[in-house]
Amino acid sequence: MKPSTISELLKQDFTLQEVDIKGWVRTFRANRFIALNDGSSLQNIQCVVDFENTDEDILKRITTGAAVHIKGELAESQGKGQSVEIQVKSIEILGDSDPETYPIQPKKHSFEFLRENAHLRTRTNTFSAVMRLRSSLSFAIHKYFNDNGFFYVHTPIITGSDAEGAGEMFRVTNLDAKTPPLTEDGNVDFTEDFFGKETNLTVSGQLEAETYAMSLGKVYTFGPTFRAENSNTSRHLSEFWMIEPEVAFMDLAGNMDLAEDFMKSVIGHVLENNYEDLEFLDQRLQDEDKKKPQAERSEMTLIEKLRFVADNNFKRVSYTEAIDILRNSKPNKKKKFKYIINEWGADLQSEHERFLVEKHFKCPVILFDYPANIKAFYMRLNEDGKTVRAMDILFPGIGEIVGGAQREERLDVLKQKMAVLGIDEEELWWYLDLRKYGTAVHSGFGLGFERLVMFATGMSNIRDVIPFPRTPQNAEF
Amino acid sequence: MKPSTISELLKQDFTLQEVDIKGWVRTFRANRFIALNDGSSLQNIQCVVDFENTDEDILKRITTGAAVHIKGELAESQGKGQSVEIQVKSIEILGDSDPETYPIQPKKHSFEFLRENAHLRTRTNTFSAVMRLRSSLSFAIHKYFNDNGFFYVHTPIITGSDAEGAGEMFRVTNLDAKTPPLTEDGNVDFTEDFFGKETNLTVSGQLEAETYAMSLGKVYTFGPTFRAENSNTSRHLSEFWMIEPEVAFMDLAGNMDLAEDFMKSVIGHVLENNYEDLEFLDQRLQDEDKKKPQAERSEMTLIEKLRFVADNNFKRVSYTEAIDILRNSKPNKKKKFKYIINEWGADLQSEHERFLVEKHFKCPVILFDYPANIKAFYMRLNEDGKTVRAMDILFPGIGEIVGGAQREERLDVLKQKMAVLGIDEEELWWYLDLRKYGTAVHSGFGLGFERLVMFATGMSNIRDVIPFPRTPQNAEF
Repeated sequence: MKPSTISELLKQDFTLQEVDIKGWVRTFRANRFIALNDGSSLQNIQCVVDFENTDEDILKRITTGAAVHIKGELAESQGKGQSVEIQVKSIEILGDSDPETYPIQPKKHSFEFLRENAHLRTRTNTFSAVMRLRSSLSFAIHKYFNDNGFFYVHTPIITGSDAEGAGEMFRVTNLDAKTPPLTEDGNVDFTEDFFGKETNLTVSGQLEAETYAMSLGKVYTFGPTFRAENSNTSRHLSEFWMIEPEVAFMDLAGNMDLAEDFMKSVIGHVLENNYEDLEFLDQRLQDEDKKKPQAERSEMTLIEKLRFVADNNFKRVSYTEAIDILRNSKPNKKKKFKYIINEWGADLQSEHERFLVEKHFKCPVILFDYPANIKAFYMRLNEDGKTVRAMDILFPGIGEIVGGAQREERLDVLKQKMAVLGIDEEELWWYLDLRKYGTAVHSGFGLGFERLVMFATGMSNIRDVIPFPRTPQNAEF
Repeated sequence: MKPSTISELLKQDFTLQEVDIKGWVRTFRANRFIALNDGSSLQNIQCVVDFENTDEDILKRITTGAAVHIKGELAESQGKGQSVEIQVKSIEILGDSDPETYPIQPKKHSFEFLRENAHLRTRTNTFSAVMRLRSSLSFAIHKYFNDNGFFYVHTPIITGSDAEGAGEMFRVTNLDAKTPPLTEDGNVDFTEDFFGKETNLTVSGQLEAETYAMSLGKVYTFGPTFRAENSNTSRHLSEFWMIEPEVAFMDLAGNMDLAEDFMKSVIGHVLENNYEDLEFLDQRLQDEDKKKPQAERSEMTLIEKLRFVADNNFKRVSYTEAIDILRNSKPNKKKKFKYIINEWGADLQSEHERFLVEKHFKCPVILFDYPANIKAFYMRLNEDGKTVRAMDILFPGIGEIVGGAQREERLDVLKQKMAVLGIDEEELWWYLDLRKYGTAVHSGFGLGFERLVMFATGMSNIRDVIPFPRTPQNAEF
């Protein structure tokens, strides 16, 4: 087949050959050299225009952002920076780009400016690399689970349940916004709403995924989830994608094995398949770092961090051990932590997680057996009666990236917990059924996909790793 | 590695070996033979209990639906219906299942009953086969696009735009449902809502996908979409998954090539990888068919239908030719169609589409160049000024399964169309930008994923091919 993308073209044998290629002009210099990009890879291909034999009207229209159709011959490049180039025989302007108004000029733009132009920002090297990596990570995830006998489950987005309590929810409705129907006692009559009751956007597919694990054995979800929380930070989105595997007959130790193997596999996939984009982002971060004072610079480059995860065994440490380590640590004693660890039961902050990974153990860490009262109702209570079989995976630079647990499979213990927390049994009748009929040990974890993309790309704002971010006051595009 | 699932076990060399397996009891007969299933495949494994040396209390608890842990030896089976079986050495009941109340008894249940027990229905052969196929089709889709250089784009679920007009939308809000804030002139003040404006659930990711196609070249979406339409039919869901590839520099002919190759590839994937489940569903349909009068029976079995798509070239026919064929057809002349085709411009119904595929051409059909006024605003106007470069793919038994188009890339023509339809340019400023800066021919299509799953499984109600269906008055689980 004739190569039709620049990525394919660059993989060809570089004997002289006719090429026919379309793309967008990144730059045009000396009235002669077009750097052409079509998004298929980070690399541009240099197209050399015979300007003496090209119409001046055409030459004027070769501007940054213009779409062009080029025919010519592939040849060894005379210049530096590329091994091949196209000797242009004909060029057609498909779509002009007015250099006076085109927002994506060949210069450094602030990420803030590019967010406002999210529809055009993948025309830059940084964002095209980030989004190719995002795509590759998605595929690595599906491939990992498919190769390992998992079934993909699409859990519902609109839910009638708000029992999981993972966070504030968005209401989904088509009642009249101004004058909704009311019941006799003056409340909104949700029986008149589309689904006959109040419905919300899901915060997690886990509970539904459990129903499939308890019949198909090994399953996972990969879909959008939502939080209606007013947190305007660089780590939170109102709409984000989550991966949630759930496995029957698997205990917490198996869950840790799975999570470690999975994370190494997907990181290994991009190291193998997306090295060019990773190198570019790595260099970008090193350049940024050079502008910072020595003390604030990263100890590892991006690629070093990825290898650190792919090549190191994850250290497994109980919460109780971790608290001891933190309590006796220098930053705790010298009150360098913002939150001082005084006693067992404290919820760990990002600073503590990063200390454990980056300073103390110097490898990815899995913390397990957390205090029951800082974790969710469905987690398996340990025999000590005060800890649950929960686990969190901590990564360098980012802290917690995975959270999981063995689930409470005992009907009586689960009911008791729900009662204490005021969760209605009626609402979760189907979840309780799993404990009534053929219950068994089972476990799973959740991975916020955008956290993974941030880790793999080194981007520091979560708004820059999802195509069109949704945050408080922002649902543009 | 020791096999841990029945699917792995059945792939082993069947020399005698120790096995250790967990699963759920499907049936237990003669106090001796357990049919054990763990969801990894359609097949059960027969476990032979030495009932004379097993505690009677344990034997009583081996009931349909119970979770058990079995250790034993794999041996050649003496009985019919399986080549190997497990000679049980020890059995542990992990979770009981009260036969008096367990809903999934070893008998035929109505699909309606199973819908009410959607959390347990994958414990049946039919639904486990359907959901394994759904998972396999999902993977086939990701694999096809990955292998062909496409990037996966997660387009937003919550959208501030309602311009596409593909259907009624659900509102996403966290304003007080009863007493929303009002503006001075008495309307609901959506600037007070979470995103600072009125927001809805997306009906399509296409427009956003176009922005990525016009930078990364070849992209696709695969995500949930929504319709707040009160259609309680066996073909409509309020929440469903859609696949939407979008490719820069590709015209309508290329779009047809892509769609045909794609459909053949994903159908081919399940024929190759899921034959056992397909055979089971095929047999189920044949059994159903036998109960029907001759005239209503299917002409092709399920697997024949799949091969019909995988092996036949899709016939490409213009809308205008199709209208001629239909106008002169027997069922039209004899008024057997519910909707008689009188003139050019008529919108085709499912009966017409099926006639073309099943009776006239006897192969999958791609109709193209539809009248502009029955298609969406963004489709490329042909030079005749009255048709657009739209295409629909028609399949046997189901009618339209794919709808696509070359997009209008000319700014002036697009603006004119939007003006006629009253679509606000302000709202789609970013979509128009694609035509201002480096515009080019581009095309794409949409495939309703559940329609594909229906086709591949032979299920006739769309509620039975998605784990937890959302329809008017129903958002259970």
